[in-house]
Amino acid sequence: MEKRPPTWGKEYAPHRPIPEATIKRLPLYARALQLLEAQRAEKVSSAELARPLGLNSAQVRKDLALFGQFGTPGFGYQVTGLRRELRRILGTDREVRVVLVGAGNLGSALLSYRGFLKQGFTMLAGFDVDPEAAAVRARTSVPIHHVDALEDRLTGRRVDIAVLAVPVDAAQSITDRLVELGVRAILNFVPARLAVPPGVHVRYVDLSLELESLSYYVQDG
Amino acid sequence: MEKRPPTWGKEYAPHRPIPEATIKRLPLYARALQLLEAQRAEKVSSAELARPLGLNSAQVRKDLALFGQFGTPGFGYQVTGLRRELRRILGTDREVRVVLVGAGNLGSALLSYRGFLKQGFTMLAGFDVDPEAAAVRARTSVPIHHVDALEDRLTGRRVDIAVLAVPVDAAQSITDRLVELGVRAILNFVPARLAVPPGVHVRYVDLSLELESLSYYVQDG
Repeated sequence: MEKRPPTWGKEYAPHRPIPEATIKRLPLYARALQLLEAQRAEKVSSAELARPLGLNSAQVRKDLALFGQFGTPGFGYQVTGLRRELRRILGTDREVRVVLVGAGNLGSALLSYRGFLKQGFTMLAGFDVDPEAAAVRARTSVPIHHVDALEDRLTGRRVDIAVLAVPVDAAQSITDRLVELGVRAILNFVPARLAVPPGVHVRYVDLSLELESLSYYVQDG
Repeated sequence: MEKRPPTWGKEYAPHRPIPEATIKRLPLYARALQLLEAQRAEKVSSAELARPLGLNSAQVRKDLALFGQFGTPGFGYQVTGLRRELRRILGTDREVRVVLVGAGNLGSALLSYRGFLKQGFTMLAGFDVDPEAAAVRARTSVPIHHVDALEDRLTGRRVDIAVLAVPVDAAQSITDRLVELGVRAILNFVPARLAVPPGVHVRYVDLSLELESLSYYVQDG
């Protein structure tokens, strides 16, 4: 990898917005590099990075080039350096602070989901209309508060991402309160479109939509 | 909507594969139409269908045109007819039979996830290395069997989709057994790429990747 150029990372092409599809692939690259690092690999080609992810090497090169000059033709990428840069670009090199609202069956499973912890996220707190029942379900050391206490508990604290798993009817009003509290990213498990002001990012995870679209592929004939 | 033409639905353009992105949007359209139907709407324009989904009308027209001539210019789409056709195309007008393997925290929440039931999926059974503990977690009437009994329980039964939520180390061997049993679609919550033969479709849901890519949007500066 070349020396860090003067225009690097997110400032590299400030007038060209990065496609969301690219942003979604960056954590895949970071995770593949983490594995390579664990295997003490020093360098990796775009083809080697692409293959286990089911992508092609041109896609990898194009994605990474949006953020700067990371690789060297004929050499590839330096594993540790590229991983460090990707984590810096994603912001996962610092503490990412998460709250969860709606700790029903799915929400309480998410509250104690090891995948979040393993990747360095901090689950600050959960909120539910019935925090006692939610605590029984979640069996976690993460504190669970009544949803009425959202403002009391979170005002003045930095929250990076809210995970939303409330009933459909409550989704928009909870979203409005989270936005008011300064939350700028929501991972939404509720099957409802959320209205948010510019600068707030919502990612939708609708598990029954996933099953419905998979159903397409398993029909006979 | 016009009368059903002779070449309709999936047979309409058999040599042109339908993009996965389109297949993922079809359930969104079907759900929007379900809402419109409940409101007794008879027709809908592509713009009206597109707007609440955050899409543009040209996208909707293009997606639907891949499956046939559903709309009439200047009139739009007939709500009930289009919904029926979309469900037929997706195969969600018949019973879609699902099993879940790996009923830990997340898996057991998925086993009793109301979103699956509500959209007409049948959860046949769950499988876990500790079915008794899984049953306590899941609090559901869905039977939970030991994962060793996968073949005993499923041989000769039609399973459309398997939901996979096992530990990473077990993911590939469970996948191989499911494929051997004839499963052709897997909704995979395990953060691991699965090797499957052609004709088997895997959809990846990696919740920590979602958080990691959201982290990008909430950095200061």
